[in-house]
Amino acid sequence: MALPSGQPLLPDQTSLEQQNRDLGFGSVMSRQRQLRLLNRDGSFNVFRQQPKWWRRLASYHFLLNMTWPRFFAVVFASFVAINTVFATAYYLCGPGAVQGDVGVPYAFLRCFFFSVDTFATIGYGNLAPSGVVAHVLVSIESLFGLMTFAIATGLVFAKFARPVANIIYSKHAIIAPYRGIMGFEFRIINGSHNQLIDVEARVVLTRFEDNAGSPQRKYYQLTLERDRVSFFPAAWTVVHPIDNASPLYGWTHEELAGSGAEFLILLTATDETFSQTVQSRSSYTSEEVVWGVRFASLFQDVDRVLTVDMQRFDALEPAS
Amino acid sequence: MALPSGQPLLPDQTSLEQQNRDLGFGSVMSRQRQLRLLNRDGSFNVFRQQPKWWRRLASYHFLLNMTWPRFFAVVFASFVAINTVFATAYYLCGPGAVQGDVGVPYAFLRCFFFSVDTFATIGYGNLAPSGVVAHVLVSIESLFGLMTFAIATGLVFAKFARPVANIIYSKHAIIAPYRGIMGFEFRIINGSHNQLIDVEARVVLTRFEDNAGSPQRKYYQLTLERDRVSFFPAAWTVVHPIDNASPLYGWTHEELAGSGAEFLILLTATDETFSQTVQSRSSYTSEEVVWGVRFASLFQDVDRVLTVDMQRFDALEPAS
Amino acid sequence: MALPSGQPLLPDQTSLEQQNRDLGFGSVMSRQRQLRLLNRDGSFNVFRQQPKWWRRLASYHFLLNMTWPRFFAVVFASFVAINTVFATAYYLCGPGAVQGDVGVPYAFLRCFFFSVDTFATIGYGNLAPSGVVAHVLVSIESLFGLMTFAIATGLVFAKFARPVANIIYSKHAIIAPYRGIMGFEFRIINGSHNQLIDVEARVVLTRFEDNAGSPQRKYYQLTLERDRVSFFPAAWTVVHPIDNASPLYGWTHEELAGSGAEFLILLTATDETFSQTVQSRSSYTSEEVVWGVRFASLFQDVDRVLTVDMQRFDALEPAS
Amino acid sequence: MALPSGQPLLPDQTSLEQQNRDLGFGSVMSRQRQLRLLNRDGSFNVFRQQPKWWRRLASYHFLLNMTWPRFFAVVFASFVAINTVFATAYYLCGPGAVQGDVGVPYAFLRCFFFSVDTFATIGYGNLAPSGVVAHVLVSIESLFGLMTFAIATGLVFAKFARPVANIIYSKHAIIAPYRGIMGFEFRIINGSHNQLIDVEARVVLTRFEDNAGSPQRKYYQLTLERDRVSFFPAAWTVVHPIDNASPLYGWTHEELAGSGAEFLILLTATDETFSQTVQSRSSYTSEEVVWGVRFASLFQDVDRVLTVDMQRFDALEPAS
Repeated sequence: MALPSGQPLLPDQTSLEQQNRDLGFGSVMSRQRQLRLLNRDGSFNVFRQQPKWWRRLASYHFLLNMTWPRFFAVVFASFVAINTVFATAYYLCGPGAVQGDVGVPYAFLRCFFFSVDTFATIGYGNLAPSGVVAHVLVSIESLFGLMTFAIATGLVFAKFARPVANIIYSKHAIIAPYRGIMGFEFRIINGSHNQLIDVEARVVLTRFEDNAGSPQRKYYQLTLERDRVSFFPAAWTVVHPIDNASPLYGWTHEELAGSGAEFLILLTATDETFSQTVQSRSSYTSEEVVWGVRFASLFQDVDRVLTVDMQRFDALEPAS
Repeated sequence: MALPSGQPLLPDQTSLEQQNRDLGFGSVMSRQRQLRLLNRDGSFNVFRQQPKWWRRLASYHFLLNMTWPRFFAVVFASFVAINTVFATAYYLCGPGAVQGDVGVPYAFLRCFFFSVDTFATIGYGNLAPSGVVAHVLVSIESLFGLMTFAIATGLVFAKFARPVANIIYSKHAIIAPYRGIMGFEFRIINGSHNQLIDVEARVVLTRFEDNAGSPQRKYYQLTLERDRVSFFPAAWTVVHPIDNASPLYGWTHEELAGSGAEFLILLTATDETFSQTVQSRSSYTSEEVVWGVRFASLFQDVDRVLTVDMQRFDALEPAS
Repeated sequence: MALPSGQPLLPDQTSLEQQNRDLGFGSVMSRQRQLRLLNRDGSFNVFRQQPKWWRRLASYHFLLNMTWPRFFAVVFASFVAINTVFATAYYLCGPGAVQGDVGVPYAFLRCFFFSVDTFATIGYGNLAPSGVVAHVLVSIESLFGLMTFAIATGLVFAKFARPVANIIYSKHAIIAPYRGIMGFEFRIINGSHNQLIDVEARVVLTRFEDNAGSPQRKYYQLTLERDRVSFFPAAWTVVHPIDNASPLYGWTHEELAGSGAEFLILLTATDETFSQTVQSRSSYTSEEVVWGVRFASLFQDVDRVLTVDMQRFDALEPAS
Repeated sequence: MALPSGQPLLPDQTSLEQQNRDLGFGSVMSRQRQLRLLNRDGSFNVFRQQPKWWRRLASYHFLLNMTWPRFFAVVFASFVAINTVFATAYYLCGPGAVQGDVGVPYAFLRCFFFSVDTFATIGYGNLAPSGVVAHVLVSIESLFGLMTFAIATGLVFAKFARPVANIIYSKHAIIAPYRGIMGFEFRIINGSHNQLIDVEARVVLTRFEDNAGSPQRKYYQLTLERDRVSFFPAAWTVVHPIDNASPLYGWTHEELAGSGAEFLILLTATDETFSQTVQSRSSYTSEEVVWGVRFASLFQDVDRVLTVDMQRFDALEPAS
C-alpha cells in the first residue's frame, strides 16, 4: 500500500498492472465513470445479488448493522409474530386447553395473552394450561422463549461491543491558500464519547486521465502535512499541500470536475474503550470541494476551559 | 514464512531441514502420500485420539463449531434430559410433592411439566411444590436453570461474535492462457454480509519430487500477480503467472497429477464488523485444477448499478 | 512517533511544523499556558460541548465509563422510573384492571407492585391483570422488561470485558542521584489482578521555551534506561538518566517550574486475560516532582517468599 | 527482546545493565537463588500483599481465573447466602408478610423458599407477599436477582471467551544426541480443541555464573532449530542444537544443576476461534531435564488416518 505520492502511480504501464494498485476495486469498477467508488458513508458502490428476504432477515450482520429503532421494530414484530403462532396452536387445542377468567371475551386473544405469559416466563397463573398437549406446547414455547431471549441478549451486546469509528467528516473539503501555496483540506472530529488514539489518515485521489486518446482511471496517494496523530482530543484538519509535486498542482476547479475526480479518505484508529482497531472511510467528489474558503475556528474559551463548539464544525469563511 | 518463490525451497538439503519449512505439518504428515494435507474446508488431515464422548459434549469449542441446527438440537435434547432428571426427583418425593389438577392424568408427566415450569422460571402456580424436600429441589432446579440459561446465552453470543472468514473458493482452480503465458488462477468471494478489508493471499505448492530415487515432498511458495487487496467489494481472481521461474513451468496436467501436487491456499483478512483478523484456508489437488478454461464474468449492469451475479461464480468457459 | 531524544525536536522551525510533532494536541491546546495537557488520570484537558442530558444518559460510553456504584444507582433509578410509568398506565385502566387482595391499601401502589411482578417476570398471580387493555399493557411491559434486561446484561458484561490498564503511578516523580549523575524517576505497579506483559513506556517532556522573545511550547522525548519489559510481576521504576544529552541537564527545580514543564507518561501493555492491548496515560507537572529523595524498597521476604508491600509504594526516603 | 544467542548477554557489564535484559524480573528477583523464577504453570514466583478477602472475592479476575467447579461452588454459596439474607428480611416482617400453605412447617424456611421463588423470578403464587413492606422487599429482591443474573451471565461468557493457550508441555525436557551433536529438546501439544496457528517459541536459559568470586545470574536466549510454525496440527518438538556456540556446550548434568539453571519457555500463538493472540509460559529446572533419552513417537496409523496418541506424550525411550 506504499504508493509513491505526487507521481502517477503507473505512468506508462498497462491497465492490467494498474489494476494491481487500485486498492482492490478491480478493473470492472475502475472502468465505471458515472459512479463514485466510495459513498460518503464509506460503503462501496457495488451490490451483490440480494439473498432471499428471509435469509437477509436472519443475517446476523443485517441485524447488527441496523439502527437501534429499526432493530427494536424487528424485535417487536418478531414478538408479536411468535406469540401469534403459539396462540394459534393453543387455540387449536380446543376451549379447555387454556383455563381461567381474565376479563378477555375472545378465546384467541386469551390464548395470545397466555402465550405472552409463557414466552416471557411470567406465569401469573390466572391463565393456566390444562391437558397434555397444552403442556407440551408450553414446554416448547418456554424453551423457545429462553433461546430467543438468549439470542436477543447476544445481539444487543454485539451491537454495543462493535467498535464503530464514528468519525464525522466536514461536509465539504476545501482548496484554499496554505502557507504561501494552496492546500487541499478537510476536517474530522470524533463523533462518539469513546477516545480514539493513533489516528492515521490516507488520502487517495482518483480521476480519469487521457491515455492515448481514451480516458483511463488513475490513482494517486496524496502527501499529507501530517498523516498520523497519537491523540485526537479535538478536531483534526487534514492537509495536503499542493506543491509542485502534487497531482493537483496547476489544476482548476473545472478541470478537476471534468476528470471525474474523487478523493478517497481512509482512516484507521484505535478505539480505547475496547482497544480495537477501527476503520473509517469516506470520499469527496469534486462537487464537494469548495475553493477559496477556510474552516471557521472550533474553539471557545468557556470559563478558562478549552471548548469545542460542534455547531461551527461545517462552517466555512472566506479565505483571507 | 518468507519462502523464496519460484525456486525449490530446499534443493539439496536433508529432510530434517526441509521439515523446518513445511509450514508446521511435520515430517510424519509430510511423508504421507495418499492423503491431502489440507481439506477443502481448511481443516488438517490429522486426528487426535478422541476424548470421551461426554468431554466432547462439554467442550466449548465443540459447541462453538457446530452448525446452528445441530446446536439447537443439542439444546433441545439437554432441555428434555434435564427436565426428565428433575421430574424423576419430584416423582420420587411421593404424590403430595407436586400439587394441582392440570388435566394431565400421569403423575410422572405432571412432574415433568412442573419441572419445565420451574426450570424456565414460569411458575403459573396451577402446579405447585409442597413440603420441604420438594422446595429444596425447586431451589436447586431454579439455580440450575439460571446457570444453564447463562451458559446458553454465553454460547449463543460466542457463536455470533466469532469471526469467521466465510470465503467461498471457486470449485475449480484453472490453468489457462494469461497475458501471453499460462497462469494458475482461482477465484474467491466473500460469502458473508460483513466487509473484509486488507485481504492477503499466499499459495504454496507441495508435490513429491524424485530425490536420488526416492520421492520426497517439496514446498514452493508461488509468486502472485497481486497478493493483497485493501478492499474486497466483489470477487478477486488470484493469479500465479507461470513464467520460467515458476515451479509449474513446463509441467503437464499428467505430470502434476503424478506428483501428488496440492495447492495450499492461505488467506488472512480483517473483518470490519468486529475489527478482527480472520484466517481462511483451502486447497486444490491436481484433480481440482481444470486446464484450458477461463472463469465466466460475474458482473452485470442492473439499472446502472454494478451487480455481482453469484450464480455464475463457479462457471467456466472455454479459453479463447 | 520516533522522536529524537535528548534534542529539541524542532530547534529552528516554524510553529506549524512543530504542531506536527505535538502528539496531536493541536496548536490551540499547545498555546495554553495555564492548563496541564494531560490530567493525572490520563484524560485530556479539553471539553466538547455537552450533548443534551438525555443523550448523555443514553450513551453507551457514558454508562461504560461509570464507576460500579454509579452504574447501579442508574439501574435502580431506571427500575423505579419504568415501573412508575407502567403503574400509572395500569392505574389509568381503572380499578378492575389489576385484581387481587395483597394487603396493600393504595391502588396506585398495588399497580406499582404488579408492574414489578410483570417487569421482572415473576408473576405470583396474587395480583393479576383483567381485561384486554391490561393484558396489552402486560404484553408490552414484558417485552420491554426482556429487552431492558438484555441491555443491562450486555452493559454489565461490557464493563467486565473492557480492558483497563489499572496502572498505579507513584504520587511523585523524583529527581535524584543515579549512577554518578542525576536521574528522573517514577514508579509504577499493576493495580489489578490481571497479568500485564510487554509493557512499554514513553516519557515526553513539554515546556515553554523562549523563542525570539515569545514563549513557545516544545516537546522532547526522554531517553529511558529501559523502555520495555517483557514481564511485570512486581513494580517497575522507570528511569531517565539526566546525562548531558538530556533536555533536563543543568536545569534547576525553579527553572523547570518556571517553564511550565509537564512530563507526559504514555504506557502500552498487553493484558493477558483477554490478550488485549491496553493503554495508560498520566503526567507529572513540575510541582509533582520531588528533588533529592529516593523511593523506599517495596520488597519483603515473608516466609522465604518475595512479597511486594503496597503500603510503601508512595514512600520516599532522603537520597543518600 | 532480540537477545544475541549463544553468547553471554552481558559479559562484562554491571548488574544494573544486566537488570535491563532480565525480561522484567528485576534485580530483587534475579538475586534469589533458592527460587525458580517461573513456575511450571507459567505464573511468577512473586506475591503481592493480599487484598482483603472480600475484595478478592469481588475481583473479576479472581472469578475469571477460577476453575469451573470452584466457580459453581461460589455461585451456589452466593445463592444460598443471598436468599438467607432476604428470607431473614421477610421473616422480620412478621407472620403475615408471606402467605400460603405449602407443607413447610417452619416460618423461616417458608420465607427462604419464597425468596428463591422471587429471586429466580418463578413466582408460583402458592407463596405470595402481603403488605407494603413485603412488596417493597420483593421489588428490591427482583431487581437484585436480575442484576445478579446479568453479572453471572457476563462472568460465564467471559470465562468462555477468554483465550487460553492450553499448551501441554512434556513433563521432562531432554538432552540427547541430535544430528551428530547433542540437543536440548522438549515437546508441546495443543491441549484444546481450538486450532492454534503461527506458534512462536522462545527459550531463555538463566543460571548463576561466577563473576569475580560472587555468583551472578545470567540470561541467554537459546538458538532453536526452528522457532516458528505456521500450523500446529499435531505435536511440536522444540530443539536447541548444542553446537559450540551454545551456552550449554560442554556442560555436564552436574555442572548445570550446580549453577541453578532454569530454562524459561515463552510461547505466543494465535487462537483461531476468536483470532486472539495467546501466550503460554513454562520452565524446566535442571532437575526436570533428563539426559540420554529420546521422546517416543506419538503417531499411529489408525485405518489409514494419521492419529496422535496422547498416552505416549510424556513417554521417554533410551536414546539409540
